[in-house]
Amino acid sequence: MRHLLTITELHNEEILGILLEAQLFAEGKIWTPTNDKFVANLFFEPSTRTKFSFEVAEKKLGLQVLDFESQSSSVQKGETLYDTVKTLEAIGANAVVIRHPQDHYFDELVNGISIPIINGGDGCGHHPTQSLLDLLTIQQEFAHFQGLNVVIVGDIRHSRVARSNADVLKRLGANVYFSGPKQWMDEAITKGNYIPMDEAVKISDVMMMLRIQHERHTCKMISSKEEYHQLFGLTEIREANMKEKSIIMHPAPINRDVEIASSLVECERSRIFKQMTNGVAVRQAVLKSALQHKGEVVFNG
Amino acid sequence: MRHLLTITELHNEEILGILLEAQLFAEGKIWTPTNDKFVANLFFEPSTRTKFSFEVAEKKLGLQVLDFESQSSSVQKGETLYDTVKTLEAIGANAVVIRHPQDHYFDELVNGISIPIINGGDGCGHHPTQSLLDLLTIQQEFAHFQGLNVVIVGDIRHSRVARSNADVLKRLGANVYFSGPKQWMDEAITKGNYIPMDEAVKISDVMMMLRIQHERHTCKMISSKEEYHQLFGLTEIREANMKEKSIIMHPAPINRDVEIASSLVECERSRIFKQMTNGVAVRQAVLKSALQHKGEVVFNG
Amino acid sequence: MRHLLTITELHNEEILGILLEAQLFAEGKIWTPTNDKFVANLFFEPSTRTKFSFEVAEKKLGLQVLDFESQSSSVQKGETLYDTVKTLEAIGANAVVIRHPQDHYFDELVNGISIPIINGGDGCGHHPTQSLLDLLTIQQEFAHFQGLNVVIVGDIRHSRVARSNADVLKRLGANVYFSGPKQWMDEAITKGNYIPMDEAVKISDVMMMLRIQHERHTCKMISSKEEYHQLFGLTEIREANMKEKSIIMHPAPINRDVEIASSLVECERSRIFKQMTNGVAVRQAVLKSALQHKGEVVFNG
Repeated sequence: MRHLLTITELHNEEILGILLEAQLFAEGKIWTPTNDKFVANLFFEPSTRTKFSFEVAEKKLGLQVLDFESQSSSVQKGETLYDTVKTLEAIGANAVVIRHPQDHYFDELVNGISIPIINGGDGCGHHPTQSLLDLLTIQQEFAHFQGLNVVIVGDIRHSRVARSNADVLKRLGANVYFSGPKQWMDEAITKGNYIPMDEAVKISDVMMMLRIQHERHTCKMISSKEEYHQLFGLTEIREANMKEKSIIMHPAPINRDVEIASSLVECERSRIFKQMTNGVAVRQAVLKSALQHKGEVVFNG
Repeated sequence: MRHLLTITELHNEEILGILLEAQLFAEGKIWTPTNDKFVANLFFEPSTRTKFSFEVAEKKLGLQVLDFESQSSSVQKGETLYDTVKTLEAIGANAVVIRHPQDHYFDELVNGISIPIINGGDGCGHHPTQSLLDLLTIQQEFAHFQGLNVVIVGDIRHSRVARSNADVLKRLGANVYFSGPKQWMDEAITKGNYIPMDEAVKISDVMMMLRIQHERHTCKMISSKEEYHQLFGLTEIREANMKEKSIIMHPAPINRDVEIASSLVECERSRIFKQMTNGVAVRQAVLKSALQHKGEVVFNG
Repeated sequence: MRHLLTITELHNEEILGILLEAQLFAEGKIWTPTNDKFVANLFFEPSTRTKFSFEVAEKKLGLQVLDFESQSSSVQKGETLYDTVKTLEAIGANAVVIRHPQDHYFDELVNGISIPIINGGDGCGHHPTQSLLDLLTIQQEFAHFQGLNVVIVGDIRHSRVARSNADVLKRLGANVYFSGPKQWMDEAITKGNYIPMDEAVKISDVMMMLRIQHERHTCKMISSKEEYHQLFGLTEIREANMKEKSIIMHPAPINRDVEIASSLVECERSRIFKQMTNGVAVRQAVLKSALQHKGEVVFNG
């Protein structure tokens, strides 16, 4: 792996290899590069989980972190993303992690930039490390993907991860279903596998809730939070109908009592905070792979 | 000590224990935890002294620092403080330092959060590490608190530290007086111990000036800075009337020529910058105590 | 060297000494101070290159970095620059790097501050580490300055570096010429050495392009970017007229297709990204010199 831009570009074996490595990091594996390495984190959108998860992963790997903030940078003087990344490369960054509101922002970078680019989320497009941490969380629970019923619930059309998670889960053998408001579905993704919430909870091994991205919805699509919760949310009543071993996932931040009842956020089935913990391990694995691609000899890995 | 939320909750012996440890750090003691530890600093209000003082303390202890900035975080997407702190815990923070404009913000945290919370200031409420560094500065000067005359000057009613400093100083044996504009006094705190500035300077061992918090005063309470300075400020003339060994303290940032004459900020009696230096040592002691509470075995402490 | 405020204050031998040390760092020299040192970076203006270049230099030297951001600091409460720097000194900073929009901001600091101040750019005034990295880049190319034709192109009047670069290059033996819009010239600097662009490209060994600082030009001085590019920019046609070994420099951020054709930014003659790489080495040398001035015993330098 050189760049990590989308999960779609990874073969199944590559994915399973990253999950294997991530699991080792989750169990306490220590790996550091043999000499000082710098990673620059460029977050052009607000983020807590992804940004700090990468930062903790980087620091656990002993990397030097450059925390780029667009508002105090030359982006304010009109500098392009390409020139910004090229600058960071010139002053010594060995890899960059980028979150950017523009879909496929990396298309303008891949030709001229020679250090690995790790996509921390692009527009409504991709978020490969989120997909990987979701997979790790499922794998820890069930040890396999074959035949699992995964229901993705929410704004399928605008989600960064719905499409790519659905693709990769199917590739790995899971049965993927979709639920939520009909106007948020996208037949190119759902392909007839829509089921109502009350059914979804009964058949699912994994309820994969998406976040309602209020900040991306310019037009109001839902009449009220209470109504959404009753129609499409994971209520206490629905949770009671879930199978014994099935789990609840959510990428967070959570809109409490909208996508999910506040009382369920830390319930026994919830893997929401476990997902965040796994995110660090997944990013350690991804960063290690990216830095090693550059031909570094490693003695302690 | 697990959390450090208010100075009030600490027993005298705990306070004196922290001061003892802080004094060792001030004299160059080195202590680091036995393995990688992460501390997240969450400052929801502007701060230079407190923020960097914690950061220097953390780095001197060899801790990894996560610098949380609310404006580039998921707080922008409506995430609650609880979910933010829970997230930082999930991705590996071993302790959090929080400054927040809301009084008692920590009440919503203490039940669900299992890592130590260190209060870096809450609304008009508490600022325990400021109180501790004030105490350390006084102790370094006089070796004891018994019988010392401490005059707290300024906006007693809205001060984060006036009430708690007054309480703890009295507990430790000092005589505490108050001065400043009458409309800023609070009888629940001052309890009849108001004295005019011209008397205050004559009897005090410690003139503990408070900062006028222009940013918190929505209504104008003082007619002009010059007038305030003449009526309630530490002028050069008043300083000349102070006792030989008495000292001047101020938490800073200073409004020069308002609370105190600009020429006195670095005068021989001033311990203003000494307080800041002490702040680092106090925070080292507090962080060490908080991290050790978690049951860590320490070989080099 | 204690402070580094302007390049003008440095003797030729001091400059050449820094360049020599910087070249060693550029070639991989490692030097770290013998005990923990803290450097605070205070950038009151947006910056990518200078800020991260200093940060990488500091981290390569093993220094602890305090990243001061004015918008989340007590500057918001009206704290002066002097009190801010004095605070950072009190809490343990061993040196400060400052960029500030006010010309000669350091005049109010040098008397009371006892730690080294390194100027990262003041208003339209000075930017000594930029000058030093420009010199290093030229020296790497030509091994000397004597007799080189250097043409500085652009807004001579408002440039932070035009005047000081011109002075120091002349001192070191170069012939310095100027080009660009006549209304941006300043006879006190140019002293009759103005040449049109079409001539400049033919005689120059170094085309030193300046950035058009749109953010500093309140009144429009140029009719359009296209017109500027045709009249005063480094077009592909002009580049074709340059001498075989002559090079192109630009401090960046670049206004592509204004000062320079976008296609030339990474052309063979361009040293633009090389300058950035050199900036790290120069700043390592400057920081080493500043920290050593404080009387530290060094075993590994």
